[in-house]
Amino acid sequence: MGDDRDWATVLGVPDEDREDILGAFDASVFEGRRYRHLTDARHGIERGTAIVDGRVVRGFPSIPRTLVLDPGIAEHFDGRLTVEEKRNGYNVRVARIDGDVLGFTRGGYICPYTTSKVRELLDPDSFFEAHPGLMLCGELIGPENPYTPHEYPEVESAAFEVFDIRDRESGRPLAVDRRREFCERHDLAMVPNFGEYDPAEATDAVREVIGDLDREGKEGVVLQSMDGTRQLKYTTSATHRADLEHAFSLPFDYGRDFVFPRILREVFQAVELDRTNGESRQRAQELGEAILLPAIEAVRAVERGETVGEDHTVRGDPDAIEALLSHLREMGITLEIQRDRRVGDERAVSFVKVSQATRDNVENYLDGQLIDE
Amino acid sequence: MGDDRDWATVLGVPDEDREDILGAFDASVFEGRRYRHLTDARHGIERGTAIVDGRVVRGFPSIPRTLVLDPGIAEHFDGRLTVEEKRNGYNVRVARIDGDVLGFTRGGYICPYTTSKVRELLDPDSFFEAHPGLMLCGELIGPENPYTPHEYPEVESAAFEVFDIRDRESGRPLAVDRRREFCERHDLAMVPNFGEYDPAEATDAVREVIGDLDREGKEGVVLQSMDGTRQLKYTTSATHRADLEHAFSLPFDYGRDFVFPRILREVFQAVELDRTNGESRQRAQELGEAILLPAIEAVRAVERGETVGEDHTVRGDPDAIEALLSHLREMGITLEIQRDRRVGDERAVSFVKVSQATRDNVENYLDGQLIDE
Repeated sequence: MGDDRDWATVLGVPDEDREDILGAFDASVFEGRRYRHLTDARHGIERGTAIVDGRVVRGFPSIPRTLVLDPGIAEHFDGRLTVEEKRNGYNVRVARIDGDVLGFTRGGYICPYTTSKVRELLDPDSFFEAHPGLMLCGELIGPENPYTPHEYPEVESAAFEVFDIRDRESGRPLAVDRRREFCERHDLAMVPNFGEYDPAEATDAVREVIGDLDREGKEGVVLQSMDGTRQLKYTTSATHRADLEHAFSLPFDYGRDFVFPRILREVFQAVELDRTNGESRQRAQELGEAILLPAIEAVRAVERGETVGEDHTVRGDPDAIEALLSHLREMGITLEIQRDRRVGDERAVSFVKVSQATRDNVENYLDGQLIDE
Repeated sequence: MGDDRDWATVLGVPDEDREDILGAFDASVFEGRRYRHLTDARHGIERGTAIVDGRVVRGFPSIPRTLVLDPGIAEHFDGRLTVEEKRNGYNVRVARIDGDVLGFTRGGYICPYTTSKVRELLDPDSFFEAHPGLMLCGELIGPENPYTPHEYPEVESAAFEVFDIRDRESGRPLAVDRRREFCERHDLAMVPNFGEYDPAEATDAVREVIGDLDREGKEGVVLQSMDGTRQLKYTTSATHRADLEHAFSLPFDYGRDFVFPRILREVFQAVELDRTNGESRQRAQELGEAILLPAIEAVRAVERGETVGEDHTVRGDPDAIEALLSHLREMGITLEIQRDRRVGDERAVSFVKVSQATRDNVENYLDGQLIDE
């Protein structure tokens, strides 16, 4: 499946630009193996693209969002589409290179924790024996998660659900039916599926699904054309609020970038989905609470001298846990370990990613520092 | 009073930098008189500084803000201070050059409307006869206002209230008592005054004043050391909400820049002034309403095909009105005239400053345009 082709040929990079473009990639090491990955889209190559032993693992494309279901869906799709749940975890690509299964984060980093989890959760060998040139694209979800922990009642620690299967080099997706067939055959969990629709009927169906997901506090949906090539996402009000609550619990780390786009999503969702002004007023009040109350609590926590940051728990192979903690520290993140214990063969660590910007800014403003405008 | 000194000497510009620095100034013409003004601080010279016939009119300094009264006030002042109302209009400097009274906006533009208004409202000749080297700094308030119209029950059309008197060239302020004495002697209206305090007692006094102003929907306070040299501002929750309501009535013109700083003001004000969690929840709900409801209404207005923008009414000398409208159009603002009539000798025009960014963005998103994230 093209494993021996040169990375530059695969990525369409002219020979004379090789060095230049390779310089845009970060260099890292995983299990003694040097590799390169692109943390931001550059030179027309997707963010997250990695080169491991000369082999290309193509980045996962960003999925566009619509602010209105009608006419957003009809504008974007001209044939049947499938509606699947957008799960709240982190995007992982799983590929096998030289016999080793590896887990890549969105930015193309081979994450030791993710790799260890997918090896443990997936048993993907039967899949990669049959399809060495493909990669599994999915969401790593669950409460024990170093990036975006989120509770799903059915997930105790962490789980991996496939939402796409793509050619590792070209990034070309399988058709939806084929992807499902492959997952069933190789016993790979898939994201929940809400059915297939014509564009004209999809709007009503998605409205109903979104209403249910919103009540359950779930994230939203991804729509995909049956050939796999077109995707579109749309999220619930519960997610907009949860994002804002999280962002404003650390206002100086996340607040500014988070607030405006999520307000816009709520504005257009209200115009499209609210049936009364009372519903919009309720939505507005909940938006305000999602913004202000966590920020007030963050200021009070800093005032009390408490550490502010994001709480995570991870559990797994001790070496993988150690490598994850080292990686986070190398990224400049200050960790405060809250609990560190053995559970059988595994190590379970609860830690806070300390939010320096929020702590420092809040302290300064509480001390009377002025703002010059 | 130094009127014959060279502008470069007054501004401390070395001879060899003259041309370079002059190039940073915009060139304009008012009543046949060419002048230059600095729309942004550059080369250590304040924004709004103007050079008219070689004479310098110094820019008005920005007043720092505190997010907490305690210890913000005590940190910033070491002696007695006066508490005055911050009025909601636009900042104007009035100076006399070669016998002509001129009104300068914050950016140093000689505004024909402002100039005509201050000539009509102030009768400042007795002041400038006595003090040709000073300038009056004040707020032009009232509903008939091309920049920030705001209702004050006592103001029918427009009024000018002095909050500072400064040396026109150096920008050095008069002491507060002197400023008040000069205003009384020359019959110049002043901003409302809430008394003088030691820093230690000012916090409680300002809390009480802010509570009253908040209930009346007024903007806030400016604190000033008795020698005039130190200033500090603090605003009401009613103002944060009114700003957000205005900004989110035109979300793509103002929303992004407005939202985060005002949320911060509310966060710290809540931590300092709210006595119960219920009060903070109420504050949060009102914040959410101030953000979301005007934006929903703006989207609905665009959906109905209505013009969105800021409504203004101006009234005055027909030549000044014509010059103002030309100026706004030259600034690239699209005006939609709603009403244009004569009232005695005066011309009264109601117009909308059309908000292209909000109209275009809302139309596009309603048409299903995708957002790539």
